Amino acid sequence: MIVLLDLLGVAVFAASGALAAVHSRLDVFGVVVLAAVTALGGGVTRDVLLGITPPTTLRQWPYLLTPLVVALIVFRFHPTVARLRRGVQLADALGLALFATTGTAVALDAAAPVVTAGLIGVITGIGGGVLRDVLLNEIPLVLRREIYALAAAAGAGVVVAGNRLGLPPVPVTLVGAALVAALRILALWRRWNAPIPRS
Amino acid sequence: MIVLLDLLGVAVFAASGALAAVHSRLDVFGVVVLAAVTALGGGVTRDVLLGITPPTTLRQWPYLLTPLVVALIVFRFHPTVARLRRGVQLADALGLALFATTGTAVALDAAAPVVTAGLIGVITGIGGGVLRDVLLNEIPLVLRREIYALAAAAGAGVVVAGNRLGLPPVPVTLVGAALVAALRILALWRRWNAPIPRS
Amino acid sequence: MIVLLDLLGVAVFAASGALAAVHSRLDVFGVVVLAAVTALGGGVTRDVLLGITPPTTLRQWPYLLTPLVVALIVFRFHPTVARLRRGVQLADALGLALFATTGTAVALDAAAPVVTAGLIGVITGIGGGVLRDVLLNEIPLVLRREIYALAAAAGAGVVVAGNRLGLPPVPVTLVGAALVAALRILALWRRWNAPIPRS
Repeated sequence: MIVLLDLLGVAVFAASGALAAVHSRLDVFGVVVLAAVTALGGGVTRDVLLGITPPTTLRQWPYLLTPLVVALIVFRFHPTVARLRRGVQLADALGLALFATTGTAVALDAAAPVVTAGLIGVITGIGGGVLRDVLLNEIPLVLRREIYALAAAAGAGVVVAGNRLGLPPVPVTLVGAALVAALRILALWRRWNAPIPRS
Repeated sequence: MIVLLDLLGVAVFAASGALAAVHSRLDVFGVVVLAAVTALGGGVTRDVLLGITPPTTLRQWPYLLTPLVVALIVFRFHPTVARLRRGVQLADALGLALFATTGTAVALDAAAPVVTAGLIGVITGIGGGVLRDVLLNEIPLVLRREIYALAAAAGAGVVVAGNRLGLPPVPVTLVGAALVAALRILALWRRWNAPIPRS
Repeated sequence: MIVLLDLLGVAVFAASGALAAVHSRLDVFGVVVLAAVTALGGGVTRDVLLGITPPTTLRQWPYLLTPLVVALIVFRFHPTVARLRRGVQLADALGLALFATTGTAVALDAAAPVVTAGLIGVITGIGGGVLRDVLLNEIPLVLRREIYALAAAAGAGVVVAGNRLGLPPVPVTLVGAALVAALRILALWRRWNAPIPRS
């Protein structure tokens, strides 16, 4: 089940990468590469930090086929340009939600201490999107003006707390992911702004 | 022999990094650092993904001296500016060819499954050039409008297939590398374009 | 003691990241994230290269609390904008000095060969600042027109030499760090320029 949620995260992050690549007018190869990097970057980083080598993501067919298929579908049927940015942000919110929580669950499974597991979850969640934005030469979403890392940390916190309380991991992961997605989508929709520095 | 090809890859990627640094008007230290990062980035990533720590590349003198010497030679005797971009692209094509194939061979040696080995080969091939372009604040070649990751994947595929068929690794690696270099140079020369998204 | 110096490096690099984030007008979350990435990036890279997983930095409270506290202090009490860039560079010089030398010491402790240890020290020193600049979409300081990697290498060399000579590690690390900081600050103050390519 955690694997299925992880794979769903791969699919939505692949979509966010592919949509961003279309927005930047990359060709079909660029769209596939950016979708793959965005979709797999977080999980590869997670496994390297946990000492799981070669990373799981690079060993299993579904993880490799999913970004390819998603990228080709997006390339062929992407929405009109005006909706691309919105699509990137929605897919990114879902990917963040799924990866931050499954990343935490995987790290707990690998016997990481709870704080470490939560942090690795946050890194798993934000990693793919950061790579996507850096490769497209943009300042990453995580640094821009909306709650982002905090939403990921809240979801990771739910998974860690559930683990401490001995609750079953799958529903806990789903609740955590729903919380992250809700926070991110609310922040986008209501244009929540955090304080900026005085000048 | 695989080590010699790997070292040749280090030399040509160092040249591509040094030429790109000269093109960006960096000083001699910047030229050396960028040459080293471009030359060693792919191999370090490969070893980290395979759990080989500290990475081989950081443990052996020839890997460290080669980028330094190449960078100083390029700094002193670089071509006229008009030819710099062409030089970066040619050296990059050779480096991609050598690293994608030797990276696959190293991963097979480390007992990675064949698909994983091919992927790690592709990552080894594109890693150095991606770091070079990201550090210079440019969208990486691999995402721009020419066959790139596909050429690397073709070369990795040749090495994997040769391994499955029990062929001797060195000639197979050479054939794979020649294929990658030929694809890249043809793509540059004939200005092959892949489809771009409809707008 | 080496841990204390390492933690001081975390604090000053966090300050450099937070000041750079304020300079780029990020909100309070962006300031915290950039401070954390700048402060912890070098040490995480060091541990991954040495095969220490999960990285020490992600396992210990002081390493996690320090960047948070520093980021909030900088966010609240940052200097006037005119002095921000100078502040980033000074904090960066101190962080480089501390991380290049403690990174080398940690690598020697982990039984890395001396050259490898020196290189890992240099990578630890420059890693956080490179991440900071790449995330803010700037060409990293290490590539720009002042002695930077060379200063880090000099400090790493002092620690390696002290280790070879059997000298006590803490004073040697302090001497190495003082050398790096002095070289960097002199380079900034006297505007030392290295040769740039002929055009």
